Amino acid sequence: MDTPSYEKKITPRATDYSEWYLDIINVAELADYAPVKGCMIIKPYGYALWERVQEVLNIEFKKKGVQNAYFPLLIPEKLLKREKDHVEGFAPEVFMVTHAGGEKLEEPLVVRPTSETIMYEVFSTWIHSYRDLPLLINQWANVLRYEKKTKPFLRTSEFLWQEGHTVHKSIEEADDFARQMLAVYEKFFREYMAIPVVMGTKSESEKFAGAHSTYTCEAMMQDGKALQISTSHNLGDNFARAFNISFTDENNQPAFPFQTSWGLSTRSIGGLIMSHSDDKGLVLPPQMASIQVVIVPIFNTENKEEILNFAEGLKNTLIENDIKVSVDSRDLRPGDKYFTWEKKGVPLRIEVGPKDIANNQVVCARRDTGEKSFVKIEELTSSVKSLLENIQKDLYDRALERRIQKTKSVDSYDEFKFAIEEGNFVLAHIDGTAETEKLIKEETGATIRCIPFDTEEDTGICIKTGKASSRRVLFAKAY
Amino acid sequence: MDTPSYEKKITPRATDYSEWYLDIINVAELADYAPVKGCMIIKPYGYALWERVQEVLNIEFKKKGVQNAYFPLLIPEKLLKREKDHVEGFAPEVFMVTHAGGEKLEEPLVVRPTSETIMYEVFSTWIHSYRDLPLLINQWANVLRYEKKTKPFLRTSEFLWQEGHTVHKSIEEADDFARQMLAVYEKFFREYMAIPVVMGTKSESEKFAGAHSTYTCEAMMQDGKALQISTSHNLGDNFARAFNISFTDENNQPAFPFQTSWGLSTRSIGGLIMSHSDDKGLVLPPQMASIQVVIVPIFNTENKEEILNFAEGLKNTLIENDIKVSVDSRDLRPGDKYFTWEKKGVPLRIEVGPKDIANNQVVCARRDTGEKSFVKIEELTSSVKSLLENIQKDLYDRALERRIQKTKSVDSYDEFKFAIEEGNFVLAHIDGTAETEKLIKEETGATIRCIPFDTEEDTGICIKTGKASSRRVLFAKAY
Repeated sequence: MDTPSYEKKITPRATDYSEWYLDIINVAELADYAPVKGCMIIKPYGYALWERVQEVLNIEFKKKGVQNAYFPLLIPEKLLKREKDHVEGFAPEVFMVTHAGGEKLEEPLVVRPTSETIMYEVFSTWIHSYRDLPLLINQWANVLRYEKKTKPFLRTSEFLWQEGHTVHKSIEEADDFARQMLAVYEKFFREYMAIPVVMGTKSESEKFAGAHSTYTCEAMMQDGKALQISTSHNLGDNFARAFNISFTDENNQPAFPFQTSWGLSTRSIGGLIMSHSDDKGLVLPPQMASIQVVIVPIFNTENKEEILNFAEGLKNTLIENDIKVSVDSRDLRPGDKYFTWEKKGVPLRIEVGPKDIANNQVVCARRDTGEKSFVKIEELTSSVKSLLENIQKDLYDRALERRIQKTKSVDSYDEFKFAIEEGNFVLAHIDGTAETEKLIKEETGATIRCIPFDTEEDTGICIKTGKASSRRVLFAKAY
Repeated sequence: MDTPSYEKKITPRATDYSEWYLDIINVAELADYAPVKGCMIIKPYGYALWERVQEVLNIEFKKKGVQNAYFPLLIPEKLLKREKDHVEGFAPEVFMVTHAGGEKLEEPLVVRPTSETIMYEVFSTWIHSYRDLPLLINQWANVLRYEKKTKPFLRTSEFLWQEGHTVHKSIEEADDFARQMLAVYEKFFREYMAIPVVMGTKSESEKFAGAHSTYTCEAMMQDGKALQISTSHNLGDNFARAFNISFTDENNQPAFPFQTSWGLSTRSIGGLIMSHSDDKGLVLPPQMASIQVVIVPIFNTENKEEILNFAEGLKNTLIENDIKVSVDSRDLRPGDKYFTWEKKGVPLRIEVGPKDIANNQVVCARRDTGEKSFVKIEELTSSVKSLLENIQKDLYDRALERRIQKTKSVDSYDEFKFAIEEGNFVLAHIDGTAETEKLIKEETGATIRCIPFDTEEDTGICIKTGKASSRRVLFAKAY
């Protein structure tokens, strides 16, 4: 639509990682800048990724008994103020509606930064008895949080997300559900986005405003920085008390229920872009790609019709086998076409020219490795399927291998500073106080990403204060 | 969740049609009131209807080559002001964001009432050459328009919709596309919502703010009032000129393109509710129902397990045949269960008790007619499918028959007033001036719903002024 993608340049990662990221978004036509500061336009090719997220997660949520609903965008300011920690966390970043229909509103309305407050006000009228529990609700929506420094997908003043909100009889059940939903995210990142994540618990200073505890999926980007790519909160009964949600239990006694909330946003698309792409453009895992295979017919004016017909035949065969295929029939040189689809990250390219047809074969080229292979027409479907599976698996394995290589366990503050500066995930002991955490952040730029679920008890001493510590936590610089 | 639905009362239509509508929404658990004036909460059972709308229309849009994207919620006020008629139409109903991040914004931002302005500002940077056309974009989003008198689904300050926006080389192509999309809506209402609509052109006074011409689907509700249930606009080059969208044509000359926009909102759910429901509750066409069949097992404590197992078996058989089924296994009397699902409008109820099992049959009860029939187990799938098809067809036929009965062609103003008062669609001659249209509206409450596509040239004289008229137009009172 704008400048043809093959004329656009990509800054190499080694030169400027941040520019590279913006260039990838530009050349792959994923997003565009908006006339409103800090907001973005999600272009069709980028929006298709979000639609895929929705498609997959809706199925997973349904398996857990979660139902979709929709709550209003605008929240009366007084509701936001109901839970003390929550309003402190969100007040500095809300957009306020003060006028409507040409008149000043009696009470300002907040554009939702998240929907705990408006949902829980309503849940208090829906929940009466233990029979009404658990209540399992999800919403797909736009939310707004005012941001001064923004970057497409990773941090924008408006973003799209899903927010799940559940209500349970006991804190054990709520905690279990919050962890189950985190596991749903982990599986989604692993099987679809090919992103290995570290699951763990947030420190007190990093947890969600108003939560009892926050669980997180942290992913390592290619520059070694962490991206918090989804979170799930055990809210305890904090909000139930603030919003007066109560129920009559099996013994006919009044009780406060326990809640969870959990979300995944368009930020995950930023993580997807940064995880696999290279200096030639976007690289998409087959499970996320809206075009998994592009067929590039190689023709001249004489044989154009014949070759295009053949390519369409291949396309139909693959579509019948649930593979997402496109034929690039434009009147361009093959090299220019390769360039287009390389930038757009299509996992597999099939080249087909007159010689290939004569030999009853096509050439398959992997986007991730560049590797080419001849495939016999009669084996097309099975070969393409297995190539796509291999690409999916290899992308995950490479990302995991990178994370393993770039995760260091250190025992001194000097080692720590060096490892952080080098761009690593760092496992280290800390005394568990917010003060020490703050000091380390100020001095090194690293934050506690999480206390990983899979680390074992391992007594040691804090790298900063020398005080006792019972477990290593994961530090990194983060997006 | 709140009061069990079988305890809720429904006002009969004959007593108070408006109360009946609100009661249906309440008992069927479609929506709830929000803590924000004029907004609503779409509950899971209601939201499932909207998800079905999205599912079906996304397929139809894709067939037309339309791609989904996402544009920001917030629009700089100056953009809204760019097209003169458009701002006049929308300025009185916008919500304004004036503060963000604790500070006053330099320029107020408008919460989108529709996205022409922000999209077209961006389209001007996307479109350069005739090769970039047509541009076919759709967005699923929330929009806000300040309303003082609101009613769930039919008129709310926030609603969900899709808005399509396309750009074309010629006005003929734009006009054709706008009409094609109207036809997509008509087909959707006919085949899925079982709502017959009148397609036509809006009068000058009723057309969209900034449009060249507006096409509409008008549906008749059970009280004879019209509901504008979706519209499609040929925008001419009004917005292209205002937003400086231009392209280089095949002869290398600069030109303004021509545009369309078209939308369908959660308002259509209001139309769906009002079209088919009765004094017992909601009635849903099978093509829209998230539960098409509910199986009610009739058991006592002794045979509970056996009957439930049998019911689950029936359910699995039907699910394998792509029928949406639920089993009501609650420990309630069968009558109470019937009551629940009647109110929720599930098209078909299957009753199965010990006698039925012994006789190798079940009882099928239609929600729309109450008609019951015995169905042999071995014919279950085919019988259920054909019952669902019949229900779908009969709902449409009944709505169409009602509209035909309640559509009058009149030739005098007295007849006109009587027919309008009686709650009819009225075809009448008018001189085509905005003044006469306004006068008729003031005196009778009726507006021109549209100039139907399918009326023929038919010269006559205006019912109000006696001046010449070349065609009858459709009048009605409207929601």
